[in-house]
Amino acid sequence: MSSERILSSLLRDRVVSAEAAAALIQPGETVAMSGFTGSGYPKAVPLALARRIDDAHVAGEAFRIRLMTGASTAPELDGALAQADGIALRMPFQTDPDARQRINAGTLDYIDIHLSHVAQHVWFGFYGEIDTAVIEVSGIREDGSLIPSTSVGNNKTWLDLAKKVIIEVNDWQPDGIDGMHDVYYGTALPPHRKPIPLVQADDRIGETSLRCDPDKVVAVVRTHGPDRNSPFAAVDDTSKRIAGHLIEFLKHEVRMGRLPENLLPLQSGVGNIPNAVLAGLAESGFRDLSAFTEVIQDGMLDMLRDGVLRVASCTGFALSPAANEEFKRNIAFYRERIIMRTQEISNHPELVRRLGCIAMNGMIEADLYGNVNSTHVMGSRIMNGIGGSGDFARNSFLSIFLSPSTAKNGSISALVPMVSHVDHTEHDVSIIVTEHGLADLRGLPPRHRARQILDHCVDPSYRAQLEDYFDRASRVSYGKHTPHLLPEALSWHQRWLDTGTMLG
Amino acid sequence: MSSERILSSLLRDRVVSAEAAAALIQPGETVAMSGFTGSGYPKAVPLALARRIDDAHVAGEAFRIRLMTGASTAPELDGALAQADGIALRMPFQTDPDARQRINAGTLDYIDIHLSHVAQHVWFGFYGEIDTAVIEVSGIREDGSLIPSTSVGNNKTWLDLAKKVIIEVNDWQPDGIDGMHDVYYGTALPPHRKPIPLVQADDRIGETSLRCDPDKVVAVVRTHGPDRNSPFAAVDDTSKRIAGHLIEFLKHEVRMGRLPENLLPLQSGVGNIPNAVLAGLAESGFRDLSAFTEVIQDGMLDMLRDGVLRVASCTGFALSPAANEEFKRNIAFYRERIIMRTQEISNHPELVRRLGCIAMNGMIEADLYGNVNSTHVMGSRIMNGIGGSGDFARNSFLSIFLSPSTAKNGSISALVPMVSHVDHTEHDVSIIVTEHGLADLRGLPPRHRARQILDHCVDPSYRAQLEDYFDRASRVSYGKHTPHLLPEALSWHQRWLDTGTMLG
Repeated sequence: MSSERILSSLLRDRVVSAEAAAALIQPGETVAMSGFTGSGYPKAVPLALARRIDDAHVAGEAFRIRLMTGASTAPELDGALAQADGIALRMPFQTDPDARQRINAGTLDYIDIHLSHVAQHVWFGFYGEIDTAVIEVSGIREDGSLIPSTSVGNNKTWLDLAKKVIIEVNDWQPDGIDGMHDVYYGTALPPHRKPIPLVQADDRIGETSLRCDPDKVVAVVRTHGPDRNSPFAAVDDTSKRIAGHLIEFLKHEVRMGRLPENLLPLQSGVGNIPNAVLAGLAESGFRDLSAFTEVIQDGMLDMLRDGVLRVASCTGFALSPAANEEFKRNIAFYRERIIMRTQEISNHPELVRRLGCIAMNGMIEADLYGNVNSTHVMGSRIMNGIGGSGDFARNSFLSIFLSPSTAKNGSISALVPMVSHVDHTEHDVSIIVTEHGLADLRGLPPRHRARQILDHCVDPSYRAQLEDYFDRASRVSYGKHTPHLLPEALSWHQRWLDTGTMLG
Repeated sequence: MSSERILSSLLRDRVVSAEAAAALIQPGETVAMSGFTGSGYPKAVPLALARRIDDAHVAGEAFRIRLMTGASTAPELDGALAQADGIALRMPFQTDPDARQRINAGTLDYIDIHLSHVAQHVWFGFYGEIDTAVIEVSGIREDGSLIPSTSVGNNKTWLDLAKKVIIEVNDWQPDGIDGMHDVYYGTALPPHRKPIPLVQADDRIGETSLRCDPDKVVAVVRTHGPDRNSPFAAVDDTSKRIAGHLIEFLKHEVRMGRLPENLLPLQSGVGNIPNAVLAGLAESGFRDLSAFTEVIQDGMLDMLRDGVLRVASCTGFALSPAANEEFKRNIAFYRERIIMRTQEISNHPELVRRLGCIAMNGMIEADLYGNVNSTHVMGSRIMNGIGGSGDFARNSFLSIFLSPSTAKNGSISALVPMVSHVDHTEHDVSIIVTEHGLADLRGLPPRHRARQILDHCVDPSYRAQLEDYFDRASRVSYGKHTPHLLPEALSWHQRWLDTGTMLG
């Protein structure tokens, strides 16, 4: 245990057990919790709440909440509450297998929105009132302000708007994190908004702690537990080839004078492939890079350590246990180079466009014309959610989507005639990369985009099939601007549902 | 004819005929012209160029150009060049029937991109070099700077980047327009971008004229011709009902405290239904409104005249002949209340979000889950293009789409199981209105969104059919988050292609 983390005597007097805190949450409430990609989520109250909900259900009582967070959390939060059937409505992003199963069974309502829209839509009044906020912090200052934990997410908004607040003080989080955060209090509702005074990823424009009205704090809970901290997969051959194509392209853009030598601020989705891209970038001779992104994962921490990356702006972490140890060990070093912001700032369209981010995100599938599906398997079954990919893709300098060309042992092609769900339209996608190559869709009309994807991205096992669709569509489609054969456009997906493979 | 419009003697010496100017454009060039929704496009050089291209084709010579503009133009530009088969590639928006026919025949390549992306993507180097700019202005100052015409569009970018410039000085345009424009010269390429210092629709942040390097001006052509100025249809019962539902909703939002009494800056698409909505707003008791939009059409001019609208910011006009007469007659009045900007500013995501615009746009179709198709008929045949609808929808306070519930005498339903093309995803659509009612999709998961659309928007002739799809999909869909039956999802469109009606 570290030294005392609760320096406000007023709030120290409100320390209770997780059970006592959870007892303050009533059935039907809208509960807004901290947490972003498995970092900085409350560790104890959600578990205690899940037990309480279980007990209520055993007793035949209804008990479900509407749950909002920053983004995904962990088994102790989404998992436990979903298993207890305690969530009526979830937003804005989640990755828990139990919750996903219930969402796709139609028993848990899920709202999938741009992460940059969450705070403002709640402020606009589109989601009703927030009853309770449950926020993990790393400490409480004497004046009652809160030192954030390993994610900031929507915590500012939750604390400002909730009727009552429960604080978890997690002393497992490094106390050296104090000073890493930048909480911007200059937001407002229209018509009172002003320009956000941030012109590079390095800029600090806010405060290092979260304001919190102590009168609203109904409970403080001490915790001592790690973030989710899942390991990343070792970089495999497919990921390495994807990274290779992208890095070759970025170097080419530098040579052509379209990108500066230190590129533009990087945004990277979370996962094994983005991690491989970051690993590749670290070894490619680039220097003095910056990142303006949602999440810092292992690859970015390595780049900071090695001096490849000068600064990284984020709203949360997704670190393996080993990377987390490195982070804690050298936190004074990282505190000079990492700035953690609220997610309305980390993902703000104004800032992403101003900075000219290079947006690198994964996808489920893309179609011949460059429409991208980031969320739905076979058009109906949601995987995770759109997250911040749209905030970055739409407003970036370069909108890049990365994926292996096939999934499920080759039974699914990531390149299809028509995507079964659209999250990023043809208007928002510049570059698609698979292990086979890179399709540069910039400045191309639809049929030329198809040529790029056919020539560079599709797996050889699906190429003839996709060429055949495109050829026939180009000949007999109702319109030849975006050729399609409607009875076949989604047939690959139906074939997979019927036979277990998209191969015809 | 008015008095001398060319006050620069240097440029007055470069006055030539339209034919002589058109002769300076070579086959294969990228030519960037002025023009936005039929206003401020060059009237003479494109016609002369079309004749030149016709002659070349008769002589067996190849002659096509790559053509960029602000948005749509008129028969004298898109029509003439398309009829001459003189356009190899067109971007970013167009509405000409001849050009549309060629695009959908696959003989004219068309790139459909967000209007806020055009200037920056050209600056980024994604479209290669611009050979010639052909820009209509209303006058030339002594110092050689250009007084813009009835649209600004991308003219600043075209003048800055083109290797050679042809200027058309149209003295049909009112000279009283001088002072109405606000050309912002503070844009830059990343990483040098700064906040745009505009915080309300009224703000002037730039200059009243366009800078132009006189060394690049290869020809000046005098013209005297009207803009396209098509009349709007009289407000019919369907439009009136759509407007009524929307206005009732806006009043409700004011009563609930979610909107100020003078609303937030209005953005309105162009067309008969938006025009009817504006007419309805004018009669509804609202006062002190503002507009931050692309185009001023008749309805908005009326609102300015009647004092309902305090100020309107735009990049172009779409006026009927009668409204144009009114505009010219009282231009001193309108000059105090209209600010014309470049389209990168009129449509800028940073500004649309900051101001919290109320975005009102038409659509071709929406589906059960609120995905909107603005561009493609039956998935393959492009109508016009996305224009600025995405710039506003994504970043607005309220993203509203309006449409009659059916088209083509009831043979097409505007509400379908799955849209055949997606321009605005479920993440970007808050409100859908037809003559039957208003679906409020805010804060709702997909199946509840479907309920809103079924209960409020779909035409009675299609309701049972759409209910049946939704019922069966909700029971047997692979995933129940966004229920779909893939073999049927696009069957309504195919039925229309096969039988002439979507009715099953």
